[in-house]
Amino acid sequence: MANIIDYINEQPNVLRQVTNYGLDLEKFSRVFLVGTGSSLNAAFAVKYVWKKSTSKPVTVCDPLSFVLEYLDKITEKTLVVGISQSGSSKVTIDALQAAKDGGACTIGVTAETNSALAAAAEKIIPIPCGEELVGAKTKGYSCTVAVLTKMAQASYDQEQLSSLLGERLQQNDALCRELAQELADCQVAYIIGAIGHYGTAREIALKTMEIVKIPTLSFELEDSMHGPLNALNERAFVMVLTAGDELAKRQRGLAKILTSLNARGAVIRDGLIRGVKAGQTWEIPAWKPDLVRDIVPAQLFCWYLALAKGEEPTYFRYDRSMVSKITKVVK
Amino acid sequence: MANIIDYINEQPNVLRQVTNYGLDLEKFSRVFLVGTGSSLNAAFAVKYVWKKSTSKPVTVCDPLSFVLEYLDKITEKTLVVGISQSGSSKVTIDALQAAKDGGACTIGVTAETNSALAAAAEKIIPIPCGEELVGAKTKGYSCTVAVLTKMAQASYDQEQLSSLLGERLQQNDALCRELAQELADCQVAYIIGAIGHYGTAREIALKTMEIVKIPTLSFELEDSMHGPLNALNERAFVMVLTAGDELAKRQRGLAKILTSLNARGAVIRDGLIRGVKAGQTWEIPAWKPDLVRDIVPAQLFCWYLALAKGEEPTYFRYDRSMVSKITKVVK
Repeated sequence: MANIIDYINEQPNVLRQVTNYGLDLEKFSRVFLVGTGSSLNAAFAVKYVWKKSTSKPVTVCDPLSFVLEYLDKITEKTLVVGISQSGSSKVTIDALQAAKDGGACTIGVTAETNSALAAAAEKIIPIPCGEELVGAKTKGYSCTVAVLTKMAQASYDQEQLSSLLGERLQQNDALCRELAQELADCQVAYIIGAIGHYGTAREIALKTMEIVKIPTLSFELEDSMHGPLNALNERAFVMVLTAGDELAKRQRGLAKILTSLNARGAVIRDGLIRGVKAGQTWEIPAWKPDLVRDIVPAQLFCWYLALAKGEEPTYFRYDRSMVSKITKVVK
Repeated sequence: MANIIDYINEQPNVLRQVTNYGLDLEKFSRVFLVGTGSSLNAAFAVKYVWKKSTSKPVTVCDPLSFVLEYLDKITEKTLVVGISQSGSSKVTIDALQAAKDGGACTIGVTAETNSALAAAAEKIIPIPCGEELVGAKTKGYSCTVAVLTKMAQASYDQEQLSSLLGERLQQNDALCRELAQELADCQVAYIIGAIGHYGTAREIALKTMEIVKIPTLSFELEDSMHGPLNALNERAFVMVLTAGDELAKRQRGLAKILTSLNARGAVIRDGLIRGVKAGQTWEIPAWKPDLVRDIVPAQLFCWYLALAKGEEPTYFRYDRSMVSKITKVVK
């Protein structure tokens, strides 16, 4: 049976399945991206891509907040995109149904085109990631990000990204194994990213909790500098995703703080993970981020870190079926 | 010299200083609440109060994201509220200045009416919290929340809240001392809140990191149920802030999950903190939240938990002046 590591390695092929969708976002007066868990993280990641494709407000929120706070504000010119890889997220289905009943345009983004989510939406856009039966979602996340990006930006070149990803997976393998050995004693982690990589940071934190089983905090770059690092200790590691030139100065500030704290961890730049040992000087150079390229080394690192810690990567500490009864629509 | 515990106890008096501001939000086509750290948390908390006062989009974001992503979308009908208790947050000042230069209406919300922030904004609304010189901000946060609430909702009754707060401070004292002893071995914490209490949860997490010095995760209610609890361990505690009837079912779901995980921690309901021991059944009843009333027991708990752990509540692990040079405008 396939395992998380197989799904991680499938990503270059999965990406090639993403096609064009020909959406015209400008015709909507407001856009909502709605989901939970990894789907919500994917929405946070692509929010800035969508914002560049429309002058109208783009709001990312969880489905309960959407229903409680925005349902009375939708019109026929509102677009609500509900995202759920399994197509069975109860609250996302409810939100899409309520939005459709309220007159909004609705799109369901899901890997399961026969699901309850698909039935609730006016239009379906498939996530072509294939089956992902075991453990925390990895290829499902990157494929969701690619689909959502392509929906807002037709010029998105997922073919080229696919080739790069294959290369990066090979290059990161040894780096991740070594880093996992070095950080195997860590009991907590901080993941920091800016702009779209705030979503990536959230997703890496979630994967670290699901696969490695250590509590993991995620922060937007600026937010990380206003207090949380006061709780950093010698059993924590920090992972930073680089942002582009516009945040170069801010990243230098963070590097200075992390260096003064003797923090250890890693920087992900250009899809490559590089370890920083305690006592070393942090360097967080400006580098154009890519939402898919930059999460792949972190997924791989989670896999190896779980193994280095003696944790079974696919094991869930709690009874998933009990949680599923609460969060999923039973098929 | 005053200490954090004094500032916590000053809050009933501070609240009485909040006055009416007579803002008409409906005349703006879009509203932004911008800040960092506790100010950003306060903005997340009051977002839903503001949304009820206008049919137009209300967006909360950090100042860098505002400048990078929204500056090209502002008009003379855009309101940008920059929040900084000290009035010296560099990125918030820059964002307000850029918004003013771009033609937006700008309001600075600050305790320092002679600050650089005050100079950058068209209009100033003071946070009447008085001096808060030592340690992490507590009264500054609750006072900021009260001011921002009053700006959007003239009927907000801070007088009545003030009396209740005095009562609750007394009632929580023994509860917090006892709970702190029970949870003194914890090395990590999860704080969970819905709607406005997502902001409260963020702020409690920040205070726990600043005062108690343990890494602390904050989650929106629904978000907490999609993976993060997989990393919960026996050295972690969970704190849940109750939401109203509209989320009763969801809270019962979370209670079921926490019970099955043998989680320990506390529930804050009606401004009172109640411990839950490992093995006990979690009960998270629906209860109308209040953004100020419900954070006070958590502040008090942080104080006692730091003492129970032998941590100096006001001590900062890193050189604050170095961080200030990066994040603050030198006065």
